Amino acid sequence: MTRLEYIAQELTARKKTITTAESCTGGLLAAELTSIAGSSAYFQRGFITYSNQSKTQMLSVNANTIRHYGAVSEETAREMALGALIATRNDYAISITGVAGPDGGTEKNPVGTVWFGFATKQRIWAKMHRFEGDRSQIRQQAVQYALAILEHYLKTNQ
Amino acid sequence: MTRLEYIAQELTARKKTITTAESCTGGLLAAELTSIAGSSAYFQRGFITYSNQSKTQMLSVNANTIRHYGAVSEETAREMALGALIATRNDYAISITGVAGPDGGTEKNPVGTVWFGFATKQRIWAKMHRFEGDRSQIRQQAVQYALAILEHYLKTNQ
Repeated sequence: MTRLEYIAQELTARKKTITTAESCTGGLLAAELTSIAGSSAYFQRGFITYSNQSKTQMLSVNANTIRHYGAVSEETAREMALGALIATRNDYAISITGVAGPDGGTEKNPVGTVWFGFATKQRIWAKMHRFEGDRSQIRQQAVQYALAILEHYLKTNQ
Repeated sequence: MTRLEYIAQELTARKKTITTAESCTGGLLAAELTSIAGSSAYFQRGFITYSNQSKTQMLSVNANTIRHYGAVSEETAREMALGALIATRNDYAISITGVAGPDGGTEKNPVGTVWFGFATKQRIWAKMHRFEGDRSQIRQQAVQYALAILEHYLKTNQ
C-alpha cells in the first residue's frame, strides 16, 4: 500500500476530513489527495494562496505576521493551517509555504526552503525542510513531505 | 514554446491575472499554471471546490443551480467561473467540473464528462468535453483542455 493509499484508507475509516492551504506547491498537494477514487469522503475543499494578500484574505493570516516573519516562516505556516482548519471546519489542515525557485531565495530562506503547518482541533505543528533540486523537484518533494507528516500523525494517533 | 509558456508570457506581458475553480481536477490546473517560475505575476489564488457545499460557500454558486442542473453541468461551470472571477477581482477565471471516475458516472454524465467555464469581465463561456481513459488520464486531459481554452482566448483577443 502506498503512503497515499494508507492516508486515504485511514481518513475514510475514521471519517476525518482534511483541507489544504498551499503556496509554493500551487495545488499539487490537493491534486495528490484527490487522485484516488473516493477521495470526496475526506477531501471537500482546498485553498491555493500564492500571494500574501490571498493568505490574509482567504486564510485570515495576520498581515503583520507576514510583514514581520515573512511569507516563508513558521508563523505564517501555522496561521495558514489554522485559518484553513477554521474556515472549513475540517478535522485536519496542512499548509505549505516555501521557495520553489529558481528565483526568490534569500540568505535566511534559500531556494528549497519549505515550511509546513499541520493543524488538528487540538494542536498545531510546524516544521521546516530544505529540499534539493529544480522547481518541479522541490514542489514534488514538498508534497511527499506533507503527506509523510500526515501519515506519521495517523500512525501515532490511532 | 509550449502552450503553458505561451500563456505565461502573454498574461505577464498583458499584466492580466487568472484564477482557477477546480472540482474534479483537484488543484492540477493551478499546479500547472504555477509550475513556471514567475507565475506570481499572473496567478495569486485558486479554489479547490470538490464538494457541492464548497462550490456554494467559496464561489457563491447558487445551491439551486446544483440541485436542478447538477454539479457537472454548464450552469454550474458558468457560476463557478463567475464566482471565482468576482471573489478574486482577477481578469480571467477558469472552472472545471466533471466526472473523473471510475465511479460517479450517469447516463447524462458518463465518466469522462467535464464541463469548463471561462469568465472575463465582459463574458462567460462554457464548454463540455468527454475524455477517454482512467481517472488520472481524464484529469490530465482536462487540465490541458482548460489551458487550450485560455490559449485560444489569448490568441483571438490580442
